[in-house]
Amino acid sequence: METEKDLKNFVESISPPLNDYSKIIQNRLDNLTKPLGSLGLLEDFVKKLGTIQKTAFPKINKKRVYVFACDHGIAQENVSAYPSSVTAQMVLNFLRGGAAINVLARQFDVEVKVVDVGVNYDFINIQNLIERKIAKGTKDFLLEPAMTRKQALESIFIGIELVKQAKEEKVECLIPGDMGIGNTTPSSAITSLICKKPVEEVTGKGTGLSDEELKHKIIILKKALEKREIVISDPLSILSQVGGFEIGAIAGLALGCAYYKIPLIADGFISTTGIALGTCFSSKVKDVIFPSHSSLEKGHSHLLQFLNLRPILNLDMGLGEGTGGVLAVVLLESAINLYNNMATFESAGVDKRE
Amino acid sequence: METEKDLKNFVESISPPLNDYSKIIQNRLDNLTKPLGSLGLLEDFVKKLGTIQKTAFPKINKKRVYVFACDHGIAQENVSAYPSSVTAQMVLNFLRGGAAINVLARQFDVEVKVVDVGVNYDFINIQNLIERKIAKGTKDFLLEPAMTRKQALESIFIGIELVKQAKEEKVECLIPGDMGIGNTTPSSAITSLICKKPVEEVTGKGTGLSDEELKHKIIILKKALEKREIVISDPLSILSQVGGFEIGAIAGLALGCAYYKIPLIADGFISTTGIALGTCFSSKVKDVIFPSHSSLEKGHSHLLQFLNLRPILNLDMGLGEGTGGVLAVVLLESAINLYNNMATFESAGVDKRE
Repeated sequence: METEKDLKNFVESISPPLNDYSKIIQNRLDNLTKPLGSLGLLEDFVKKLGTIQKTAFPKINKKRVYVFACDHGIAQENVSAYPSSVTAQMVLNFLRGGAAINVLARQFDVEVKVVDVGVNYDFINIQNLIERKIAKGTKDFLLEPAMTRKQALESIFIGIELVKQAKEEKVECLIPGDMGIGNTTPSSAITSLICKKPVEEVTGKGTGLSDEELKHKIIILKKALEKREIVISDPLSILSQVGGFEIGAIAGLALGCAYYKIPLIADGFISTTGIALGTCFSSKVKDVIFPSHSSLEKGHSHLLQFLNLRPILNLDMGLGEGTGGVLAVVLLESAINLYNNMATFESAGVDKRE
Repeated sequence: METEKDLKNFVESISPPLNDYSKIIQNRLDNLTKPLGSLGLLEDFVKKLGTIQKTAFPKINKKRVYVFACDHGIAQENVSAYPSSVTAQMVLNFLRGGAAINVLARQFDVEVKVVDVGVNYDFINIQNLIERKIAKGTKDFLLEPAMTRKQALESIFIGIELVKQAKEEKVECLIPGDMGIGNTTPSSAITSLICKKPVEEVTGKGTGLSDEELKHKIIILKKALEKREIVISDPLSILSQVGGFEIGAIAGLALGCAYYKIPLIADGFISTTGIALGTCFSSKVKDVIFPSHSSLEKGHSHLLQFLNLRPILNLDMGLGEGTGGVLAVVLLESAINLYNNMATFESAGVDKRE
């Protein structure tokens, strides 16, 4: 069992990028048959990927999304449009390949791994489910801390360990996904604390609350944040008081990616909350994060600003699971593809600028 | 040779969508295992595609980009960072598969067809080039009209005819591309006229002008617009006075797509100028247009607003050729893919909203 000291040691052992490959990569980009800088952010992506992978020729062959599923005690406060039973049902849907993330992952050749970090259901003899159940859901954080510090720690190490495994299996790009009825509520709580914004500004309608129900959700969140004893400077305190197991696992995923040098594509509100929490342990997380979309869910934009990420997709999506992240993978691949396969001014016999 | 009367007749024969398939498609979307509306714009795309294709199950199997290349007389006023020789050189680069559009088109299985509508170069025995040269470039519209009304008409019918051909070849999605040194200058002129914005607000640095050079470009444009006798209510007058052959061809492409019911994905500044000009002939063009990215080039945002299109990709790209459009095709495909292949609440045994 890992201790807080182990986490501290792990975080301190994360190295910064050894070399900045930006210059050498930009030099090649500037010789391709296009106006200087005209591939915009795609050029930045190649440079960042190269720096992470320590090469002038980055690549993304094997891609994987980890969908972390769990339940939330706070769901009993009527903060979601769907019943908690949906969490387990959706896990089975993921495993049968019927969910949105499955369809997109097949289209873009991304592996889907489903991780039970705390679903309130006994999965028996279910193949392909990665079993890491911490508990059958968190506690209702209106009434008590969502989880113990030990559980919070456990959730983070689950994420770290899965990156280690991905690294051994030569995965070159990871996407965090999430499933858990009620999970926008802990995400809003954490976003409010990390981004230092009032609850109203970071709380949205989740899977489809009415205006009235949203008001209720905000009241619940405000009460809960008043009651919980949170040490803002201690991310483990934040996670244990008002978090979710998937948020902890995604924070761990972000830390793992920073350590093992694997690009991580932020998805929507819940996964970006996890990543933002990860940066509270180590700012080096930012070196490996790529943006994807801007979610419909209020609060996401604050997190993106906090992480200094500009969304590249504006699709008004809001279903999590890693769906936005998977749509962005293909754009990273396009960036690499252009960089590797476009003709140069010289090879194509095209005149350069006057 | 087609006449203005022929164009008028063609435009008047464009039918509105026969049936709105939105309801039947939304009904299916709402039964898929996801929160209501959570696929955002992807849901809108399926509905629009279905309405265009007159089916509850739209598809995009065959996709094609037409890259229209030509030169611009106005380039002699030092309004571009690159010499005019680059237009013909890039045409050869397209045909050899070395340009950005080729790389992306291969990645996303899109055909690239290169159309010479007015390059100042004699292509001899060049395979796969579609030869529709109207003239060896437009005239310098600071000094005289860019083209005759007859040439303007010709450029539009080139676009229309290519859609007809695409329809016969079962193409289900078209993307307009452009290549022509100097082509942001006529585009800014047309955007200023159509969007009723001062030149400064719609004129950018094109392929990389300095601040000083941009000032010069703006002065040239202002002088030219003062000199030319333009009837704003007559799009053929706009095109002939300050246009480019590719802009006319893309306007024709848009009209053709509206007539033959083929979805057309707007690309960057030049192609969106052509499409906006197309809507000046017939507002029904809007029924078949899909957005892609928001270009770096100033002026593009005004056109998108004029067309009521919200860009879905923010990549700060600015190289035309159809590159942004091709990146958006894959998102339309994702939309269809999700719609066709996600499980329903019933089939997956997932509970619906409470």
